[in-house]
Amino acid sequence: MDIDVEIIAVGNELLLGDVLDTNTHWLCQQVSELGGTVRRAVMVPDRTEVIGDALSTALGREPRLIILTGGLGPTSDDLTLAALATQLQRPLEVHEQALKMVQAAYDTLADRGLVHDARMTEERRKMAVLPRGAEPLHNQVGAAPGVLLQTGGTWIVCLPGVPAEMKSIFSASLAPLLGDLFEGRVFLERVLVTDCGDESLLAPIVDRLAADHLQVYVKSRAQEYGENVQLRITLSLSGDGRLQVRSLVDAAERDLAERLARAGISILDRADAIRR
Amino acid sequence: MDIDVEIIAVGNELLLGDVLDTNTHWLCQQVSELGGTVRRAVMVPDRTEVIGDALSTALGREPRLIILTGGLGPTSDDLTLAALATQLQRPLEVHEQALKMVQAAYDTLADRGLVHDARMTEERRKMAVLPRGAEPLHNQVGAAPGVLLQTGGTWIVCLPGVPAEMKSIFSASLAPLLGDLFEGRVFLERVLVTDCGDESLLAPIVDRLAADHLQVYVKSRAQEYGENVQLRITLSLSGDGRLQVRSLVDAAERDLAERLARAGISILDRADAIRR
Repeated sequence: MDIDVEIIAVGNELLLGDVLDTNTHWLCQQVSELGGTVRRAVMVPDRTEVIGDALSTALGREPRLIILTGGLGPTSDDLTLAALATQLQRPLEVHEQALKMVQAAYDTLADRGLVHDARMTEERRKMAVLPRGAEPLHNQVGAAPGVLLQTGGTWIVCLPGVPAEMKSIFSASLAPLLGDLFEGRVFLERVLVTDCGDESLLAPIVDRLAADHLQVYVKSRAQEYGENVQLRITLSLSGDGRLQVRSLVDAAERDLAERLARAGISILDRADAIRR
Repeated sequence: MDIDVEIIAVGNELLLGDVLDTNTHWLCQQVSELGGTVRRAVMVPDRTEVIGDALSTALGREPRLIILTGGLGPTSDDLTLAALATQLQRPLEVHEQALKMVQAAYDTLADRGLVHDARMTEERRKMAVLPRGAEPLHNQVGAAPGVLLQTGGTWIVCLPGVPAEMKSIFSASLAPLLGDLFEGRVFLERVLVTDCGDESLLAPIVDRLAADHLQVYVKSRAQEYGENVQLRITLSLSGDGRLQVRSLVDAAERDLAERLARAGISILDRADAIRR
């Protein structure tokens, strides 16, 4: 069964064009490699009602996992947890374990001389105020813990917007927990590089292949037009068993190779780009 | 009056984590510099009903402009115009001027030896099939024209997903037309670099400043924790008049400088990052 995932990136700096959102891209890669499917990703400003609306819309589609990035810090425009609490009608409470994590983070930062002192201020305490029922995820890089909670059949994960913190929490604290969610899923992506530079020539071949192999995702990639254009064809598939996934992709590739050969197009290179 | 803009990026390759969507970021920059406000950006797969749903949701918020990227090419998974036609209940028709653009593009590509021949195939003709009432936007880099249409008070623009083509159409063919939409708008973004590395120390200052200058957008940026952290504070504002925008930002900056000085924080550098 497909594991549907949605991503919500929070931050005015993204919509102002001030910061390029690389978090969503990285999370899409992680989810794909885990065998999940990102159905939609959205970028919203630091406004409680807009974050809440995006959450509500995503929850309405009943994905297995919603990942939010950004808006977990100490400033008043860090609104992700407030929006989440409002949306789920859960109170915001100081979480004792989260508070210890925040304190420990500032102790370390103070020891290293990176902050002036390790006092627990109101702003710092804010990062330990979670919606009821949520669990903090240890942040080895910065101060704000990640947050995990469940509502109905959906897991909701909140990660900081700073990429190093986001990646660290995902890989060290979250991935082990996600193992259950993605148990048994396999993802295979095979990339074939052709010597053909004309997408309109490949199009009918790719179209017919996709129609004959409905389960496999077939994509020819438009490259920048230049002197050495080589169109690539990607065959990819998520599924529940390694053998089944591989045999479906193999069958599509054999079929594709025959059709390309008949059209006088050569395959220059092939590789399995991602596999789990 | 605010010029609200929404962006929809179309492509399975984005959600698979195969391609980083730099188009949305670039468009956010362009819109901000024109004095507009990107309210939301979404990434959707190559599925007619999902693209249509994203369009419908965006149209429901009545922005002045919706920009879609991707899904304009010759393959059957290029579905943006089909989704748009369905959503607006307009028929898809061959547009004669668009057909000439596509033919001219393939003539050029064939002359340069980049495609085998310049025949008008079904796949190539597809790029000239537009929803009724739409106008093509000349693509100097690739074959697929951009598309512009209006519905109610909203302009809808479709651009190719290949960044060079997207940027070329936006800058050469679209920006002159957008002049009307953004007439008289001004955007100013002032960035102040501080010698403070502790966001929780800046937070109360930034919070109070934002509360006292509600019109100005005030943001302190969380940096990666490292040896030389310098938090930056951004003051930005879109408005209808140059003098008014500048004086509001100037007032917020004076106020900020005083409060920082009182907290023993120095401003190391200041710059107007974007201005129109």
